[in-house]
Amino acid sequence: MKNFMDENFLLENETAIHLFHNCAKNMPIVDYHCHINPEDIANDKTYDSITDIWLGGDHYKWRLMRANGISESEITGNIKSNPYKVFENFAITLPKAIGNPLYHWTHLELQRYFDIEKTLNQENSKEIYSRCNEYIKLPNFTAKNIIKNSNVKLICTTDNPEDDLHFHKQIKDDTSFNVKVLPAFRPSKAVNIADKEYKNYIEKLEKVCGYSITSYKELLKALYDRIKFFNDMGCKTADHTLEEIIFVESTDKDLEIIFKKALNSEPLSTLEINQFSTKVLLDLTKEYYKYNWVLQIHFGCIRNLNTSMFKSLGADTGFDAIKSYTNADNLAKFFDKMKQNNTLPKMVLYSLNQYDNEIITTVSGCFAENSLCPGQIQIGAAWWFNDTKSGMEKQLLDLSNSNLLGNFIGMLTDSRSLLSYTRHEYFRRILCNYIGKLVENGEYPNDIIYLENIIKDICYNNVIKFFNFDL
Amino acid sequence: MKNFMDENFLLENETAIHLFHNCAKNMPIVDYHCHINPEDIANDKTYDSITDIWLGGDHYKWRLMRANGISESEITGNIKSNPYKVFENFAITLPKAIGNPLYHWTHLELQRYFDIEKTLNQENSKEIYSRCNEYIKLPNFTAKNIIKNSNVKLICTTDNPEDDLHFHKQIKDDTSFNVKVLPAFRPSKAVNIADKEYKNYIEKLEKVCGYSITSYKELLKALYDRIKFFNDMGCKTADHTLEEIIFVESTDKDLEIIFKKALNSEPLSTLEINQFSTKVLLDLTKEYYKYNWVLQIHFGCIRNLNTSMFKSLGADTGFDAIKSYTNADNLAKFFDKMKQNNTLPKMVLYSLNQYDNEIITTVSGCFAENSLCPGQIQIGAAWWFNDTKSGMEKQLLDLSNSNLLGNFIGMLTDSRSLLSYTRHEYFRRILCNYIGKLVENGEYPNDIIYLENIIKDICYNNVIKFFNFDL
Amino acid sequence: MKNFMDENFLLENETAIHLFHNCAKNMPIVDYHCHINPEDIANDKTYDSITDIWLGGDHYKWRLMRANGISESEITGNIKSNPYKVFENFAITLPKAIGNPLYHWTHLELQRYFDIEKTLNQENSKEIYSRCNEYIKLPNFTAKNIIKNSNVKLICTTDNPEDDLHFHKQIKDDTSFNVKVLPAFRPSKAVNIADKEYKNYIEKLEKVCGYSITSYKELLKALYDRIKFFNDMGCKTADHTLEEIIFVESTDKDLEIIFKKALNSEPLSTLEINQFSTKVLLDLTKEYYKYNWVLQIHFGCIRNLNTSMFKSLGADTGFDAIKSYTNADNLAKFFDKMKQNNTLPKMVLYSLNQYDNEIITTVSGCFAENSLCPGQIQIGAAWWFNDTKSGMEKQLLDLSNSNLLGNFIGMLTDSRSLLSYTRHEYFRRILCNYIGKLVENGEYPNDIIYLENIIKDICYNNVIKFFNFDL
Repeated sequence: MKNFMDENFLLENETAIHLFHNCAKNMPIVDYHCHINPEDIANDKTYDSITDIWLGGDHYKWRLMRANGISESEITGNIKSNPYKVFENFAITLPKAIGNPLYHWTHLELQRYFDIEKTLNQENSKEIYSRCNEYIKLPNFTAKNIIKNSNVKLICTTDNPEDDLHFHKQIKDDTSFNVKVLPAFRPSKAVNIADKEYKNYIEKLEKVCGYSITSYKELLKALYDRIKFFNDMGCKTADHTLEEIIFVESTDKDLEIIFKKALNSEPLSTLEINQFSTKVLLDLTKEYYKYNWVLQIHFGCIRNLNTSMFKSLGADTGFDAIKSYTNADNLAKFFDKMKQNNTLPKMVLYSLNQYDNEIITTVSGCFAENSLCPGQIQIGAAWWFNDTKSGMEKQLLDLSNSNLLGNFIGMLTDSRSLLSYTRHEYFRRILCNYIGKLVENGEYPNDIIYLENIIKDICYNNVIKFFNFDL
Repeated sequence: MKNFMDENFLLENETAIHLFHNCAKNMPIVDYHCHINPEDIANDKTYDSITDIWLGGDHYKWRLMRANGISESEITGNIKSNPYKVFENFAITLPKAIGNPLYHWTHLELQRYFDIEKTLNQENSKEIYSRCNEYIKLPNFTAKNIIKNSNVKLICTTDNPEDDLHFHKQIKDDTSFNVKVLPAFRPSKAVNIADKEYKNYIEKLEKVCGYSITSYKELLKALYDRIKFFNDMGCKTADHTLEEIIFVESTDKDLEIIFKKALNSEPLSTLEINQFSTKVLLDLTKEYYKYNWVLQIHFGCIRNLNTSMFKSLGADTGFDAIKSYTNADNLAKFFDKMKQNNTLPKMVLYSLNQYDNEIITTVSGCFAENSLCPGQIQIGAAWWFNDTKSGMEKQLLDLSNSNLLGNFIGMLTDSRSLLSYTRHEYFRRILCNYIGKLVENGEYPNDIIYLENIIKDICYNNVIKFFNFDL
Repeated sequence: MKNFMDENFLLENETAIHLFHNCAKNMPIVDYHCHINPEDIANDKTYDSITDIWLGGDHYKWRLMRANGISESEITGNIKSNPYKVFENFAITLPKAIGNPLYHWTHLELQRYFDIEKTLNQENSKEIYSRCNEYIKLPNFTAKNIIKNSNVKLICTTDNPEDDLHFHKQIKDDTSFNVKVLPAFRPSKAVNIADKEYKNYIEKLEKVCGYSITSYKELLKALYDRIKFFNDMGCKTADHTLEEIIFVESTDKDLEIIFKKALNSEPLSTLEINQFSTKVLLDLTKEYYKYNWVLQIHFGCIRNLNTSMFKSLGADTGFDAIKSYTNADNLAKFFDKMKQNNTLPKMVLYSLNQYDNEIITTVSGCFAENSLCPGQIQIGAAWWFNDTKSGMEKQLLDLSNSNLLGNFIGMLTDSRSLLSYTRHEYFRRILCNYIGKLVENGEYPNDIIYLENIIKDICYNNVIKFFNFDL
């Protein structure tokens, strides 16, 4: 029997142990997609309590407590008023989470950031709460220090096109902070033409651009201008989030009519919405391609399912789910169009439905001829609900089965929390174990130098080359 | 090499062995969903032969024999006329069923109910047939004794709304039989408005209610009255079986028109059928919620695919299959509506397509705020075609990955046979092995007291609390 | 740690090792579905180089190189002009393919056909290239000798209806070559009414039939005549490749109108195309049934996704992918119709989407009553992108879970290359390991004689009985 989460956690063979400890563990982190607020870094945020940093915004933990029958007033309703109670509720819930990634993430964070080896439960929740809060009060427990001490070299945040990126400037200007923090371009609000707030959003965009946007053509100009600005600010990637992969063709005239309807708050048909979202994504790829950016697409997710909770708590509060399946034909048409337009950029595809993996790998594998680089189309690391041991293992398997694992760009946190860098450790253990197993089972040669290089590549080198990061 | 199906069958590590033998094995059985005929229990049925009890109604075994090329006349056509021949056909077929759950179920039943350790095949089929029949002739081989000797404490059968439940009364009145047998409310025939027999069915319902049902409103009243009657009879659960999860809104007026059409035997459109089935389910949840019942929904199944065999043998004879996928958006809308109506009852969701598991766990996880109890929405145990070692392991994994395994209500037989209680043993072995593996691999703490409690909870305690059974 | 790909490659337990070495390894090969050109066999083709035989037509390898960023001009553009460069590109790519089946296939072929135990990489690519080419120049390195030395007893090629099969005659006439090479009937071009070349194709068919084809009825007559001719030539199987399983009913009159439209090059609606493809398949099953042929259906594949590469390289060049899912209802209706028409032939179903496996096994299991033979409907071996260790294991598991593994007809190459017979070895190792694991884990009795017979059946005996091959 192995000890609970000791130094060889998830490492089930000697090769894995060697690769992790001699290689993966010490590689720096490049977190190329996350939701950390750049303001928190710029202002070197400090935290009130472990509840603040752990449970203030983490909808994974909220969902788990809700599933355990804890009332909302004692979860999101209590964070400021009674932070210990919320922490205790989590401590009550956690022991039931056998096999859940939160069990591992939680204890990795307790081990790495708070030197706590105990397993959290109701009995010791007061003790662990106090211990964590002592650490949190220490002067080095600030946003910048957490990042530095986590061996992070680069972070990509997620930013709206109209953002002036002044927090990014502020971070860059702090010469004592040697971690790169780059913006990522996420034009969701400009793309979601069906949103009730769309017209207001365009006004926001007009303001920052300094000219009026009355046509689709002008919208594109505005977005292109913002892309240029982001690029000047060091941005290397755009991120699109889609419920599903849609592909509906349209004419320029259609697009102008649709956009005008939206500005006039006229209702749009599903066809029109789909035409718009197809076209604007295709048109944006031109610029992404031109600037050699990486286009990340997150799809297969249905959001804000619970109407009343959406009204009371807003988006990203734990009310999203996995969508049924991805339409392979649409994905193929979308790729084919970019290829024909000669605008196929470097891409990372993430589906929330893990049974799409094989569709993504095989469809994208049809558009790899004369690639911009090895592994131009990446199957993103296991995402969100798949960010589990089994989900990561499946992603590695599916990638290996029909593509080149050696070109994989590895892990990201996708997190809102600064303590989530342990997810890189989690991934790296699973990666080393996966490769170690193949080697020990005689399925890949035991050439340790080559294996070490592959681990280093997947943990660090590939992502730098792929995004063209200046590190 | 392990011995074939010995006491440590499916237990691959020490923790699993400990948990099963010290804990899981001896927990009583609560079979909260099955298809045993209450008449058989009430009348303490006896059996003619092993063919009668094993092959008289078990469409799993029929399918296997059909797949082996045995003609129908030597399967369902021969049960009464030549019971040994049917048994022998099964004995011929079984050795080819490597890796099939029937191989294990069959031998668990032979071991537990007939003290037979041999593996069934053509050579020993006569010998085993005789041996089984000797046991069957013994005075304790009756329905009630089988149930008692299987350590069963409670059974929920599956009953039509119009049933007067007199067999349930009869069972209750037998004070020497200390197993609770409760009805479960299954209003399929009242919901399936597209059925040719629908009008006749409503007449049946009118008869038992004692008033005429000429409107949708009156239909609801009738069903509500039957729910009240079932509740008075100790019922704690309703069971709906759906081909797929549908959600189509409608007005009260629509419903009245649709219902009248059905009574007049006018053809209904797919839209109308879907409107009706959406609304009637939503309306029934009000009462389920009111009585604190558990709503079980079985979906993802297409039934009676083989027209000619349906004509000759009827339903539930082995001609059903797995449907393609569940529409996550519909499932979400259905939940959202119940939540908005404040009628979301305790629920157990079972899909026959195991790749729906992740959709079910994540969608239902969006509606857990302010739950009625811990684990208000349960992902049902692996169902029917998934009732395999791999299917059960997948269900446990999928549940663990995004919810709390510690709240799981565990196994049911869903069976027509009284010998199927060994499926609880099968499940418990797999459960202990699953948890044991996590512990031995350092993924969960080796706190044996806590682990034993979790096993006891999943095998017995959780289900009692969840259904509010009076035991 | 096991050695890399030694004699016990993929055999993880003693039972597996015994079964493979004493049983599976030496069984002859019946390759009942492949794409080898009969001309190559008839003319006993020789090869220019390892590039010619390995990389001349293998789109699996092309895809891998493309994914590695190698330009098309250095892959398909270079095969004749600079064969070493293409080989080197593959050698550069291969080490990154950890966990990819090509890593194993490649080294199995190097070991078995070229006595090379090294693992291919850029450093030794020149040396291995030379060594392979020395072997290729040897007199026994010809198509017929490769086949004979691979212990192949029978091959089914894939042939168009209009083919006069003269290469098959030529092969048969060579009495020194004792391997049966049979044609398989693949009427894709006659079925694909939406193809722009359809009219021209019908003219081809007219020519070989010697009469004009101006109606659907005449088309059927022509195809029936060709089936008869193929049958006379020893053909035992037809192969249909479908993007998806469609089922749309139509009248005879509809069909005549649709066919005439096609002959007049008038546009067809999706409905019409689907009506045609449903009906022609159903009508062909009559003859397949009559001649006791096996109908193989390959589906779940979308083809030629990359428009520009299709224009430059044509079909089957590595631009195909997995389709989203199979419609279980359509599959069921299709089976039901054949059953009602009493034309359900022996069948093998292959879906490219492995998550269809459970649908296929359960739907087809609904139509097994009064079968023509044990295992009348087969779930084909893991196909194409699923032709991986995990894909094969999943196919075996899915088959076992709801059917009889003992009736499985086993592996085929589906290959264009004569060196692909090692895929049978790959499969057999995985099969022995799968069964060995069950036995060693106490899930199936350790009756070695019976186990050996099952292995022999799956490797060889079942397929001969199933196809009614005269061997």
